Amino acid sequence: MSEKYVIGVDFGTLSGRATVVRVSDGRELGSSVMEYPHGVMDRTLTAGDGQTLPPDYALQVPADYVEVLKAVVPEAIRDAAVNADDIIGIGTDFTSASVLPTDENGVPLCESEEFKNNPHAYVKMWKHHGGTEQAERAIAIAEARGEMWLGRYGGRISSEIVLPKALETLEKAPDVYAAMDYYVEAVDWIVWQLCGRLIHSAAPAAYKSLRQNDQYPSEEYFAELNPQFRTFIADKFEAPVLQLGDRAGDLTEEMANDLGLRPGIAVAVGQIDAHVTAPAAKAIEVGQMTAIMGTSNVYIVNGKTARDIPGVFGIANGGISAGLWGYEGGQTGVGDIFAWIVDNIVPGEYQNEANRRGISVHELLTEKGAEQEIGEHGLIALDWHNGNRSILNNGALSGTLVGMTLNTRPEEIYRAYLEATGFGLRVIIENFLQHGVEINEIVAAGGLLKNKFLMQIYADITRIPLSISGSNLAGSLGAAIYGAVAAGAYPNVYEAANAMGSKIEHAYVPNEDAAKKYDLLYEEYLTLHDYFGRGTNDVMARLKGIQRSIHERKNS
Amino acid sequence: MSEKYVIGVDFGTLSGRATVVRVSDGRELGSSVMEYPHGVMDRTLTAGDGQTLPPDYALQVPADYVEVLKAVVPEAIRDAAVNADDIIGIGTDFTSASVLPTDENGVPLCESEEFKNNPHAYVKMWKHHGGTEQAERAIAIAEARGEMWLGRYGGRISSEIVLPKALETLEKAPDVYAAMDYYVEAVDWIVWQLCGRLIHSAAPAAYKSLRQNDQYPSEEYFAELNPQFRTFIADKFEAPVLQLGDRAGDLTEEMANDLGLRPGIAVAVGQIDAHVTAPAAKAIEVGQMTAIMGTSNVYIVNGKTARDIPGVFGIANGGISAGLWGYEGGQTGVGDIFAWIVDNIVPGEYQNEANRRGISVHELLTEKGAEQEIGEHGLIALDWHNGNRSILNNGALSGTLVGMTLNTRPEEIYRAYLEATGFGLRVIIENFLQHGVEINEIVAAGGLLKNKFLMQIYADITRIPLSISGSNLAGSLGAAIYGAVAAGAYPNVYEAANAMGSKIEHAYVPNEDAAKKYDLLYEEYLTLHDYFGRGTNDVMARLKGIQRSIHERKNS
Repeated sequence: MSEKYVIGVDFGTLSGRATVVRVSDGRELGSSVMEYPHGVMDRTLTAGDGQTLPPDYALQVPADYVEVLKAVVPEAIRDAAVNADDIIGIGTDFTSASVLPTDENGVPLCESEEFKNNPHAYVKMWKHHGGTEQAERAIAIAEARGEMWLGRYGGRISSEIVLPKALETLEKAPDVYAAMDYYVEAVDWIVWQLCGRLIHSAAPAAYKSLRQNDQYPSEEYFAELNPQFRTFIADKFEAPVLQLGDRAGDLTEEMANDLGLRPGIAVAVGQIDAHVTAPAAKAIEVGQMTAIMGTSNVYIVNGKTARDIPGVFGIANGGISAGLWGYEGGQTGVGDIFAWIVDNIVPGEYQNEANRRGISVHELLTEKGAEQEIGEHGLIALDWHNGNRSILNNGALSGTLVGMTLNTRPEEIYRAYLEATGFGLRVIIENFLQHGVEINEIVAAGGLLKNKFLMQIYADITRIPLSISGSNLAGSLGAAIYGAVAAGAYPNVYEAANAMGSKIEHAYVPNEDAAKKYDLLYEEYLTLHDYFGRGTNDVMARLKGIQRSIHERKNS
Repeated sequence: MSEKYVIGVDFGTLSGRATVVRVSDGRELGSSVMEYPHGVMDRTLTAGDGQTLPPDYALQVPADYVEVLKAVVPEAIRDAAVNADDIIGIGTDFTSASVLPTDENGVPLCESEEFKNNPHAYVKMWKHHGGTEQAERAIAIAEARGEMWLGRYGGRISSEIVLPKALETLEKAPDVYAAMDYYVEAVDWIVWQLCGRLIHSAAPAAYKSLRQNDQYPSEEYFAELNPQFRTFIADKFEAPVLQLGDRAGDLTEEMANDLGLRPGIAVAVGQIDAHVTAPAAKAIEVGQMTAIMGTSNVYIVNGKTARDIPGVFGIANGGISAGLWGYEGGQTGVGDIFAWIVDNIVPGEYQNEANRRGISVHELLTEKGAEQEIGEHGLIALDWHNGNRSILNNGALSGTLVGMTLNTRPEEIYRAYLEATGFGLRVIIENFLQHGVEINEIVAAGGLLKNKFLMQIYADITRIPLSISGSNLAGSLGAAIYGAVAAGAYPNVYEAANAMGSKIEHAYVPNEDAAKKYDLLYEEYLTLHDYFGRGTNDVMARLKGIQRSIHERKNS
């Protein structure tokens, strides 16, 4: 019998990537990546009338996903030079809680003449924080009603998950809300496009749509949020729920044609992009924390029991692997913050030097920053440019930098933010440990791995050895692993991960001397973290409130 | 009788400027400016062996001052096209508490082979904060001893004034200390060069060297600071004290030759650079606050009585004009912070756009920042990159920025710092008002006046009308006014100022709508000001302590 293959397609924040993977050993044979034509719309609605968007908006165009899918899959097959007939399944993963309104056939409302200029008809990305007010209300009402599921989300409802985005749509764009037949996560929408069937993947439903113990929150709860929201689940949301590794359906004739695949091959249930890394990096044992590091960082870890942990973003039975409880935490701005620095606060002479030397500005800043001793820059930063997911779970928080002098240089600011994300990671890990979730290894994957100085910072600050994914394409490899299980090549995800995943063990080991020096800075970070993050001074929320009221007045 | 003229020479932070002024009406007939060849040495000792300097150091080369003097005076005379024989006097002003060690003839120790590579042998500028530890000790001991003069300085001794700089020299460079015959402020040293006689100008002696009621602090106090420091005043410092407007001496033959002036003309007692603006801008009445706005801002105001005011930098009888008490406050980083932003955290595309349009990056950032409404940037900054002079008087404080998001743009950061300096100004004004010092007009002078948007921000935030100096060269005009009095052309500074000074009244009037909006941001500023500045969280001092210990280890 000839070798069989699967395709994994990883839909990230800025681009989609397809990889052809050998079923027997996980070898990646060919790959292709393409950026979304419209990227992220966070200042103007470029796909519509170009209107200015409020702060905290982050939208995408669903047709971009399909365009990318149809480009990268055939190209990855060509690149792999395999016979398309030997490809037995396709798995996908997607940025989490990217959600869009569609008609009953899955056609996005933003594609209609009526709604093409309405921001709420587009995909609200994970980092869309337009529903901050709705999220706060959702928490207050859940607390007042004593909703038990709230504990599974660290006692908080992030403006990033599905409910606040749906409620924001109802309240800011009632016509869009009325017109939609489904409000669907992109992770399920792309599977719908592939197999012609709308199902809900259990993991995102639990992590991002408040589904616990096979139920969504009650109609009474939704009605208290807004009377017209009462039947949201029944009218606009619900669909059959399948587990990770399940087969959502068969690849449709039309899509098979566009992708250059056999019709009828297995289409796997979709998974949250970050989470597919766990099987790809063989990090599904208790005590292993998978860290997916890119524009934002996501941390997932398996625990033996269900515990309500403050600031944990979500807990799901079987959310990572069968029989264990998957915990998710994360940092909403990591690579995004480093990129913000490079784009906004680095002088032209640095760009010129980087160009001259043929390196990126990121590499230049890292190199210059690494020349200093720990603490020599005299800075402490809070890495909250995009809010704080764990453990404060508050989208109204914002970035801070303390300690600037007239001698402060850009590379020092850059390094301070590298370190700040490490301190943020340590806060998350200590919170897990304090609540009995074991962590003795960080298994890292994602674009930030190429910054070795940053990885050593993370190992030093946390005092935990850091292993790295053996694949540079852990996202699409992980999606492919689910494809292999859906196609029946392995009996479960655990066995598929062991056969197809890979990692480099303890690539970074903590240096105790550095760790001690970072301890001093971490203490300062913690003090500021609590001062700005735990209600002593809510200046960040008030500043955002002023911004919001200016914007609302301008738009009214 | 033909018209008579005086020359004023204004020694600023980066350059010196001479202006030829008509005695009868203050008209400026010619002027010349030149930058100090070595500028400010704050990273390396460029005039010596190029050694790396500790953070917080800011040094200058005294020969630069003389080189500039000999260049700009003849050039200003040429530019004015007057007969040098009609010039009857020369007045000078200097950055305050710029202080240097010399031999008995006034030759700077840094010019000797032995000390040319010793940072402590150079001029310690006003913004040199190397003596922070010494300043803290000086306060603690003064408090313990109940020294009454401490109240005249707001209960604080800044690391910027003379005493901590001298003590730092004794303790870090005892060989320099032992070798010096005089530790002399540059304001007096340049007069010494002109007339061959060392005298102390009463105003800087009071403001910067703790001279109150005709006395310096006692030998017992100095001995408690350090036993070897006991006789500092008698051995290394004391000189005859003259008043503002007095004639320090006659221009020496040699210097007259170099400057192209008649020997024997009047050389006026020197004044602190900021303070000469008061007569130049006719701002010597009670209720008028002279604001000298440049790299740093200095505020001086006349009061009817002596009051000890917390955070006021200095109080001197006759320090501004005879018969009134001169109060001084200030902000240590203003234009310096704006320049730091332009040099360090503005991307190349802004430089390119500014170049293309033929404007400065400052103008570009101001223009872009001004397009927004008040509060729209969502930022609050603390303008402490160079410490805080008033009202916290603490060089260990540092700059802060709160509220950054991934959408924050450079012009927003720039505007936040424009505003922060306005909030800092308001703190100073409210402190004066609370302590019974009347302020009903700000009379502004200095380089920042060219930013009209900034001036309006200051009027709006403080709700006080802002007049501006009628002269673009208020510094050298003010120095010239003292020159005219020293030459006997007017009986006193008050009459000279009325004849020769000028201002444009109420050029900026507060806008109440804007003022209300700024009130909201000012509240946030105040909260952070007190949190970081009044001991709740001394993170800034601790971060600087870490920096200092790293630097000391590296240098040991």
